[in-house]
Amino acid sequence: METIKTDVVIIGAGPCGLFAVFELGLLDLKCHVVDVLDKPGGQCAEFYPEKPIYDIPGTPSCTGQELTDRLLQQIRPFDPVFHFGEMVASVEKLENGNWRLRTDQDKEFEAPVIVIAAGGGSFMPKKVTVPNAAEFEGKSLFYAVRKMENFRDKKLLIVGGGDSALDWTLNLHPLAKSTTLVHRRQDFRAAPDSVNKALSLVEQGDMSFVAGNLSQLHGENGQLEAVTIKHTEGGAETVHECDNLLVFYGLTMKLGPIADFGLNLHENRIVVDTEKFETSVPGIFAIGDINWYPGKLKLILSGFHESALMAQQAKRIAHPGQKILFQYTTTSSALVSKLGAAA
Amino acid sequence: METIKTDVVIIGAGPCGLFAVFELGLLDLKCHVVDVLDKPGGQCAEFYPEKPIYDIPGTPSCTGQELTDRLLQQIRPFDPVFHFGEMVASVEKLENGNWRLRTDQDKEFEAPVIVIAAGGGSFMPKKVTVPNAAEFEGKSLFYAVRKMENFRDKKLLIVGGGDSALDWTLNLHPLAKSTTLVHRRQDFRAAPDSVNKALSLVEQGDMSFVAGNLSQLHGENGQLEAVTIKHTEGGAETVHECDNLLVFYGLTMKLGPIADFGLNLHENRIVVDTEKFETSVPGIFAIGDINWYPGKLKLILSGFHESALMAQQAKRIAHPGQKILFQYTTTSSALVSKLGAAA
Repeated sequence: METIKTDVVIIGAGPCGLFAVFELGLLDLKCHVVDVLDKPGGQCAEFYPEKPIYDIPGTPSCTGQELTDRLLQQIRPFDPVFHFGEMVASVEKLENGNWRLRTDQDKEFEAPVIVIAAGGGSFMPKKVTVPNAAEFEGKSLFYAVRKMENFRDKKLLIVGGGDSALDWTLNLHPLAKSTTLVHRRQDFRAAPDSVNKALSLVEQGDMSFVAGNLSQLHGENGQLEAVTIKHTEGGAETVHECDNLLVFYGLTMKLGPIADFGLNLHENRIVVDTEKFETSVPGIFAIGDINWYPGKLKLILSGFHESALMAQQAKRIAHPGQKILFQYTTTSSALVSKLGAAA
Repeated sequence: METIKTDVVIIGAGPCGLFAVFELGLLDLKCHVVDVLDKPGGQCAEFYPEKPIYDIPGTPSCTGQELTDRLLQQIRPFDPVFHFGEMVASVEKLENGNWRLRTDQDKEFEAPVIVIAAGGGSFMPKKVTVPNAAEFEGKSLFYAVRKMENFRDKKLLIVGGGDSALDWTLNLHPLAKSTTLVHRRQDFRAAPDSVNKALSLVEQGDMSFVAGNLSQLHGENGQLEAVTIKHTEGGAETVHECDNLLVFYGLTMKLGPIADFGLNLHENRIVVDTEKFETSVPGIFAIGDINWYPGKLKLILSGFHESALMAQQAKRIAHPGQKILFQYTTTSSALVSKLGAAA
């Protein structure tokens, strides 16, 4: 495994993480950006890609996806390297003063500066609360579909009422030996078209639907054999044979491994100063929704300001002894040339 | 004279003053905005209306004028009232806890909250340093042209090498009895086209040019009769008859009357906290380039953040006891309806 050496590792590719690339880039700092999602934009792109945001200064209205696209365009001159679908799992101080970061995909980075821009934390699937669920997880109980072929000829049980649950029901049904959809009521959040398709498969007898909740998992050595479902109406319990269980209860945000970095926290958020937005550990910064200081508002525009002030101190750490010239993009030909502008 | 009562008086209609209208408006605070310039945009619109700015987050490139226009569009739903060409000259605390503000045009406001967003301060023309200059100012020595007709049939002497000096030379030359342009060298900052036009008038004998500096003003009771110019080459002094002197040495920024508001200052900037961006005087806030706190960078994007945090405290002062609901423009239908959006 090769170690990727860079000036800054940014954890989180939401709007603040993206704009940090810009502010750090103006000071000649090169960034790698790690995000657990499979694309840039963070909550903006995940939760409200098509809803308008009205409070980005100078942008009277834009959707989360548009904001993401504009930020990507703005940072293009600095050529950041993205690592999507990965989570920084551990951070360790090296003797040379740098940090070593490892992701859950076993990628390794070494950098003098870490910027945590992880928003509300990592998106994690909400899990089944049945006590023995953990023993099946990753073996016959899954919260995501990595490869459709894995479900060929399986007796599949899918739980959930949103788009993920309905879409995977429709996509996997042709491959699976049998398909059962479970949701607490016959009233779905998913797109009506998908719901109608699924319900007509049920009517034709091609798949089953049960209105209820998972109450027990049965099986051995991680291999599910059946689940018990408690029906919403009447409360009766029925047992349903299945060898693969897919659960789509939605995403939740957790601080995740960041909680173990040894940083001072305030109600699950990372305490920073308002001069440099540095955490209690020098060289580790936190910007955007994940940080806390007196007066903090969880606004995207605050994360932008925090990026700019953070970058000054990051520069001092990454390139010690180099003089920092405070310049404006409007008047500095050096900055304009860095931006590759585009006059 | 009627007193204008409002929630907030904002001093300065630059980008931060404009965006403050937005953040205050979201919290139902009504704003009047006073600016010494004759239009909104502050330094952006005055110094670089046509130069691109690259570091407004989410706006990869825009000119100062475009940024101003977008901010004006963004705050339109809150219907701010502008008072241009006026300077707040005095501030006084009333017994009811409100502030009384008076402008140099004798306009009077009463408000519980003042937001100073005055950038580098007020734009003032750089003045002639010849000792007796003050006695001619406003009578026969001017730093701006209010009415061209005032210069008809005058023996005009214009000093300066920038666009203002050259443009007014070309515009007033047809009206004036005689025109003399004075600049320290025959090398102008003005647009080459204007320079060429002026120099060809000199060649044709229609006006004069002297490369030198003002060294003495002659006249009585405020009425100029002649000026002495010290030539740049050789240092000889010559006397030039004139009855009107126009000086364009450029604009400088001064704190102006704000220096007398009784606020704590740090190197001519107003000290604020980073929680509410309130000055040492409760109820008076300072945002943007004019404020100072540890880590402060004079960036427009910082002023935007400062506006947002300031607005929370301004709300508490202006509407005491009202609960502040922290809401997002993306998800709050109440905010969206305030924005008159525009779905």
